[in-house]
Amino acid sequence: MKELVSINGIISSPEDAKISVFDRGFLFGDAIYEVTRSYNRIFFKIEDHIERLYNSANLMRMKLPMSQEQLIEHIYKLYKGLDVDDLYMRIQISRGTGAIGLSPRLVSSVNEVIYMYPFTPISSELYKEGVTIFVTDRTRNTKRSLDPNIKSGNYLNNILALIEGEEHGAFETFMVNVNGHITEGTTSNLFLVKDGVLRTAPESYDLLRGITRKIVLSLAQNLGISTDETGFSLKELQEADEIFLTSSTREIVPVSHVNGISKEASNFILTQKLMGAYKEHIGEYCDQARSRHPWK
Amino acid sequence: MKELVSINGIISSPEDAKISVFDRGFLFGDAIYEVTRSYNRIFFKIEDHIERLYNSANLMRMKLPMSQEQLIEHIYKLYKGLDVDDLYMRIQISRGTGAIGLSPRLVSSVNEVIYMYPFTPISSELYKEGVTIFVTDRTRNTKRSLDPNIKSGNYLNNILALIEGEEHGAFETFMVNVNGHITEGTTSNLFLVKDGVLRTAPESYDLLRGITRKIVLSLAQNLGISTDETGFSLKELQEADEIFLTSSTREIVPVSHVNGISKEASNFILTQKLMGAYKEHIGEYCDQARSRHPWK
Repeated sequence: MKELVSINGIISSPEDAKISVFDRGFLFGDAIYEVTRSYNRIFFKIEDHIERLYNSANLMRMKLPMSQEQLIEHIYKLYKGLDVDDLYMRIQISRGTGAIGLSPRLVSSVNEVIYMYPFTPISSELYKEGVTIFVTDRTRNTKRSLDPNIKSGNYLNNILALIEGEEHGAFETFMVNVNGHITEGTTSNLFLVKDGVLRTAPESYDLLRGITRKIVLSLAQNLGISTDETGFSLKELQEADEIFLTSSTREIVPVSHVNGISKEASNFILTQKLMGAYKEHIGEYCDQARSRHPWK
Repeated sequence: MKELVSINGIISSPEDAKISVFDRGFLFGDAIYEVTRSYNRIFFKIEDHIERLYNSANLMRMKLPMSQEQLIEHIYKLYKGLDVDDLYMRIQISRGTGAIGLSPRLVSSVNEVIYMYPFTPISSELYKEGVTIFVTDRTRNTKRSLDPNIKSGNYLNNILALIEGEEHGAFETFMVNVNGHITEGTTSNLFLVKDGVLRTAPESYDLLRGITRKIVLSLAQNLGISTDETGFSLKELQEADEIFLTSSTREIVPVSHVNGISKEASNFILTQKLMGAYKEHIGEYCDQARSRHPWK
């Protein structure tokens, strides 16, 4: 098999994988999720993603009846049935199925859905030539309205931003805060390099604490690159020497165009150094994980 | 039959009504909806709800392949199979099913789900004694991030607010804007009466243009009651002479408690006058609709 879905531990083909229209994920986006990929049958940073999933649940007061170990068992059960080295995996947990109404008291237990199918990387050319991004005037949901640290089933803020960017031919769109500082992309974080310093928006901004973002900051420190977690505007971004985005599935992607300004991505020295260090880090993680994971 | 669901025109029992886990409503809350109820087999203000549904679709760039008339046909088909006078109805339309990814380009057409089941009113005592509401510090999603005029499948902002209110024993919770002015409830609008003037937050605020809200403003004008669409804070609300909330399913509900302050709802003269006028308005609407609706 190449692709499967598990719903509350019951495995089916993607075509047969269905959920009640009374599920709160469908009704209200009342769900949390995580996405990661495998490299040669090792799910990268699975522990970090599962920990973040439980943190999302906690932030939105959703009680998860299964332990992190039980959830990993469900993932393992699904993974065993698949003959694919590099997998895309999405874990989505909704607050459950019940009478229609906003109160979470209307449901008793969650619905857990795990998706796995072959991972399709973006074109390798994009890692050399860079991608076009768009910075929109749309603000990211604030921590005070709906904390972006809840990686939830409420992605319309991001979808509307992405539609705006796609109209400008962008690969990814970045949202701002009310001060015009860039917060995060629809599914990624953003970095710039200026005068040898690596800069990204601080965690205090309206953004999800990206797992790749954190790795990149740590790798930069190991490489002796100065890092600075302070916010920046579109103008500062356009004046940067190098720009790249990060995400768990796309890793580090150089940016060649930002709202009409272009950069020569093939000349991004620090970005390339970090891309190399990130590849090495993946290798090291997978070697270590192979010895301690239940799946070998 | 007492309750049924229609999915893309195919009717089933609620138990059998299922949707793909690849539906964007389930994945991202990428859906729109409307709710109304019937009085003696007439869906109240159905035209206004359907018009608002199409406006939500427009605001979020979702193309609806069916005309408003075709959608009413689907509603009628479902309704004919039910032997219930007073129905609850929810129409929910997702952007469709496709490969996982935020871009709407990944799907071709929408999924239309219509739910109908017997309407359960709230206790009649609450219309006499009033309900407890809670005003939270949580801000409503702003128009600049995700316009509340898109009545969408993204309701986590509201759900988190409601959880906060429920911890304070509240029936409904109201959110604020960054200036501390009340915007809207999780599923209702709010009015106060002070010195004979009826006041509610303006449409320019981060709120959905409530259908009942609009009717109440119009009825007040007919009754010679002064109206004032300017925002107010929790403090101003607590100093009001009368308070009530409005919603399509619950109509006009007096409010007796707001964050520790209590009011004698049985003494709300203007509220009671409006409740009476609203009942009359329902009767008039249903009489007129009965003569022109396809369902009699």
